[in-house]
Amino acid sequence: MHTDQLHELGQQLRVDSVRAAAAAGSGHPTSSMSAADLMAVLIARHLRYDFSRPEHPGNDRFILSKGHASPLLYAAYKAVGAIDDAELRTFRALGSRLEGHPTPRALPWVEVATGSLGQGLPIGVGMALAGKRLDRVGYRVWVLCGDGEFAEGAMWEAAEHAGHEHLENLTALVDVNRLGQRGPTRHGHDLGAYARRLRAFGWHTTEIDGHDPDAIDRACNEARSTAGQPTAILARTLKGRGVASAEDREGLHGKPLSDPEAAIEELGGRREVRVEVQQPPAARSLHAARSGHLSLPRYGVGDAVATRTAYGQALTALGHARGDVVALDGEVGDSTRAEYFAKEHPERYFECYIAEQQLVGAAVGLAARGWIPYAATFAAFLSRAHDFLRMASIGGASLIAIGSHAGVAIGQDGPSQMGLEDLALFRALHGSTVLYPCDANQTAQLVAQLANGSGIRYLRTTRGATPVIYGPDEEFPVGGCRVLRASDADRATVVAAGVTVHEALAAAETLAEFGIPVRVIDLYSVKPVDRDTLREAAERTGCLLTVEDHREEGGLGDAVLGAFTDGRPVPRLARLAVRTMPGSAAPDQQLHTAGIDAESIAAGVRLLVEHGVVK
Amino acid sequence: MHTDQLHELGQQLRVDSVRAAAAAGSGHPTSSMSAADLMAVLIARHLRYDFSRPEHPGNDRFILSKGHASPLLYAAYKAVGAIDDAELRTFRALGSRLEGHPTPRALPWVEVATGSLGQGLPIGVGMALAGKRLDRVGYRVWVLCGDGEFAEGAMWEAAEHAGHEHLENLTALVDVNRLGQRGPTRHGHDLGAYARRLRAFGWHTTEIDGHDPDAIDRACNEARSTAGQPTAILARTLKGRGVASAEDREGLHGKPLSDPEAAIEELGGRREVRVEVQQPPAARSLHAARSGHLSLPRYGVGDAVATRTAYGQALTALGHARGDVVALDGEVGDSTRAEYFAKEHPERYFECYIAEQQLVGAAVGLAARGWIPYAATFAAFLSRAHDFLRMASIGGASLIAIGSHAGVAIGQDGPSQMGLEDLALFRALHGSTVLYPCDANQTAQLVAQLANGSGIRYLRTTRGATPVIYGPDEEFPVGGCRVLRASDADRATVVAAGVTVHEALAAAETLAEFGIPVRVIDLYSVKPVDRDTLREAAERTGCLLTVEDHREEGGLGDAVLGAFTDGRPVPRLARLAVRTMPGSAAPDQQLHTAGIDAESIAAGVRLLVEHGVVK
Repeated sequence: MHTDQLHELGQQLRVDSVRAAAAAGSGHPTSSMSAADLMAVLIARHLRYDFSRPEHPGNDRFILSKGHASPLLYAAYKAVGAIDDAELRTFRALGSRLEGHPTPRALPWVEVATGSLGQGLPIGVGMALAGKRLDRVGYRVWVLCGDGEFAEGAMWEAAEHAGHEHLENLTALVDVNRLGQRGPTRHGHDLGAYARRLRAFGWHTTEIDGHDPDAIDRACNEARSTAGQPTAILARTLKGRGVASAEDREGLHGKPLSDPEAAIEELGGRREVRVEVQQPPAARSLHAARSGHLSLPRYGVGDAVATRTAYGQALTALGHARGDVVALDGEVGDSTRAEYFAKEHPERYFECYIAEQQLVGAAVGLAARGWIPYAATFAAFLSRAHDFLRMASIGGASLIAIGSHAGVAIGQDGPSQMGLEDLALFRALHGSTVLYPCDANQTAQLVAQLANGSGIRYLRTTRGATPVIYGPDEEFPVGGCRVLRASDADRATVVAAGVTVHEALAAAETLAEFGIPVRVIDLYSVKPVDRDTLREAAERTGCLLTVEDHREEGGLGDAVLGAFTDGRPVPRLARLAVRTMPGSAAPDQQLHTAGIDAESIAAGVRLLVEHGVVK
Repeated sequence: MHTDQLHELGQQLRVDSVRAAAAAGSGHPTSSMSAADLMAVLIARHLRYDFSRPEHPGNDRFILSKGHASPLLYAAYKAVGAIDDAELRTFRALGSRLEGHPTPRALPWVEVATGSLGQGLPIGVGMALAGKRLDRVGYRVWVLCGDGEFAEGAMWEAAEHAGHEHLENLTALVDVNRLGQRGPTRHGHDLGAYARRLRAFGWHTTEIDGHDPDAIDRACNEARSTAGQPTAILARTLKGRGVASAEDREGLHGKPLSDPEAAIEELGGRREVRVEVQQPPAARSLHAARSGHLSLPRYGVGDAVATRTAYGQALTALGHARGDVVALDGEVGDSTRAEYFAKEHPERYFECYIAEQQLVGAAVGLAARGWIPYAATFAAFLSRAHDFLRMASIGGASLIAIGSHAGVAIGQDGPSQMGLEDLALFRALHGSTVLYPCDANQTAQLVAQLANGSGIRYLRTTRGATPVIYGPDEEFPVGGCRVLRASDADRATVVAAGVTVHEALAAAETLAEFGIPVRVIDLYSVKPVDRDTLREAAERTGCLLTVEDHREEGGLGDAVLGAFTDGRPVPRLARLAVRTMPGSAAPDQQLHTAGIDAESIAAGVRLLVEHGVVK
């Protein structure tokens, strides 16, 4: 496409952005108008993408990190013929694929959900890692960023990761329009401020007029020919570009233009420039190739093995059986045991250092390229990445998160290292799966099973060794539970998971001596939860006590309570959880102090059975 | 203290770190040994601090950002006479103040809880902001950082904030020991890598041998005399310094030395160097000075006002009445309405740009200096800062977080902007308070009340206007609820909060027409929850339906269920919540599609009352 036409295309994208927002009565046309020339040059001259085959392994990848500029994205989809004008005008309407912020749930050309700023670049790094280290197909990853989002630390986690890995297949197009939502950004139009920072992180940078198609074109060529470094194209732009009443003005973020018809006229009216996007080169996907027999580790009943160890060993075995499994870790692979995988499958292991947002962002990027990521760190520190997990669930991303060092059971390190809110955080994610195994064989089975799931799957592991209570060939379906102890005489049901399963079994022994037989359930699948078994146990035994190494809000107890919200009568319920702030102490002291050890469980059951009230 | 003695003091801190970890059988002596000389010079020559008066307003502030080096901190406390040797040897024991990672809950000289890396510097920025802009007392903030934690994006949010605000009263001592937990850091001993990055962010840097007391002393003097910039002292150190079998070796992170007696001998044996820390200058705290009459905004019953607007107006009024109230925002003050406060109290307003970790970190720092911070952004984006909130709760920090744009009710912007997990995230925090008002007068009352609370207090606000249903003089105690509609004939109870209160009231009208009178409860205090009123309502009406604009896990519904876990019989329960992934749509369409509008509530109650099962 000739340069004159590039300008026309940019104007068309502006016009269509204005029209889409006007039709919706909401949206972000001014943020779209600043980046319109960047988008025009990218799609007309540099992007290689087959819109009829979004799954093509050779396709370049495009991420709209500034997701609120969705009108621009949809205007581009129209320009390339992927959607028609009638659909463009459904922007933000009920049932439309053209949501306020783009998501791959709705549109096949959207790689990942954006709309929470500072996430596109970290995810783009994951895709570029896949491209460089795994797929080896030669596609480029283009990320259109806002300037304001560089205030997010996650952008610098990504900058560091990309620079360190020399991701020359990654280009950030930065729309420096100097205005954030409520006013000027910190650095305004000082392109050098961004350039100095990014260069310090190992990036190649180029500073241009973001409304000059020639300059943009040259910068994209420069990015494509720069070896050994990711490139940031720092483009000076004006928000609302092309419409005098909106251009470079504060107070217009996220608002349709006040007079769209006049604005369209000022922009030269509607156009019908059609872009023929370059096709990607022929390519094939590598990762489906290798798949073999799965030989999971087998642990002897009665042995003491930490579930985190079983995670590392099972994942390593899974890596031998499946070529599409990859592992990531946040510089604690010796603790999470991801290091076992790293040793045997170094080419599929991604060290993310102490940068949990980048850890999850990279996993989302790898997942978008068809890999099956297992991303591990301490359960407590996954909270650092919660917004990434939230956005991943919105985008329908498929990934597995592993949180080690669950609960007070870690012992002396104290509360900063204890995962005590993680079940609540993961349960609240839409469509999530939350598993919490109590022994090594169960862990191994679940690790393997998780590879076949969808959505955000979370596995919680324990630091200390726990006794193996299940044989290596037993099966543990997601959504199930295990009744470990039952009789017709049971007077209560104790529901536990992870470390508290062993405490519950010990309590049951004690209670039996007191003449109080109890049922014990291992609720390894916290979400989805086995409602039928829980209700049956509660109804048969008359009351139910949950016990968890987690805060009382949002965890196992709430998951069990949720099984009784269908309007039918509810048996008597009580729960034990971590209600105080732990300090340092040995693991057994911690369980006792928190009131979730065998002694506490036995006392709770006796109160429930003998007095009918627990408080 | 003479230089020879500084070396001796450093060795003593190493010896005591080794002894503490040996006594505990766990801990991080090698990470303490690398930073021992930095600590020695700091406490002997530069820190101004009255250990008998930790509340002294002129005290310098010290934050151990690498909180795992707690043995070093406690060894320093011993050297200055704050604790004795017997207490040092209680390290990590049950009941000891000397936890694995330091927290102000236990020790008066600890400013904030650390142990999750990358948080000390952001919080230090908050303290330095307080020092420079509010307290104006002249104290310095010293933050001892690890090298590994610079992988955390939060460090760069802090670097940007500090550079932009020219915080010359802030010094980062960076212990570049080149080894992380599982192996080398990205940059090893390349001090220049850190220097280039920090300089690009506007910092003054100096690169030194971190085991040369003279060099450290000079660097600290340089930091104290550098105007207009924060300083980073980049110190090349060796992990395990001074013990050949441990020095600069991998695989020894977080482990006591294998032969502590030999190590102590190699370090020259025990010493009893006593440090006289410089006293701070006389100073008085400013912020208690001004306090006046509170004149909250008053809204007319029946008017339509967004609770976010009431937040902004009430906080502005509170700012007039109380000189100790400060506000922070994440570059969305026009949306959260924090901009109202900014306009009237610019000296007490902190713009944190799009950096939610820094937003909360700065709030924690301001709170540690005695200010009462209200930190606001979209509820969805507070998830970005969850680890900071978690650590704040561990440290007993007192702050108020405001999350606007709650739930599907925001409408067209779609799920990326909807707070749908925020109640779960805040409820799970230990000692938290979670409030969700439904009208403007209620919001104003709660905003004012929150200033007097403790711990992490969360207020959830709504984007759209809702009818004012309460008079301006009504009171809403934390932990209470409001029964909005009740009769002896009620056949069900509907529990709602925020936008769903209005839907529940409408549903109650409809149901009354069908001859089904229902009780309606406004559960504005989601945590703590009014157990007694909920139980009484449920028992009198026979069944209870919760309805919330939030995911079904961890929110209002779970809070209500939690009121029925005392072992007594439970009435019939059901709930309505957001179970699907919303797209874009108008607010009323969103409520309807999610099944939480008046029509859905009425249908749910009819199922519950007439069929006894809801599913």
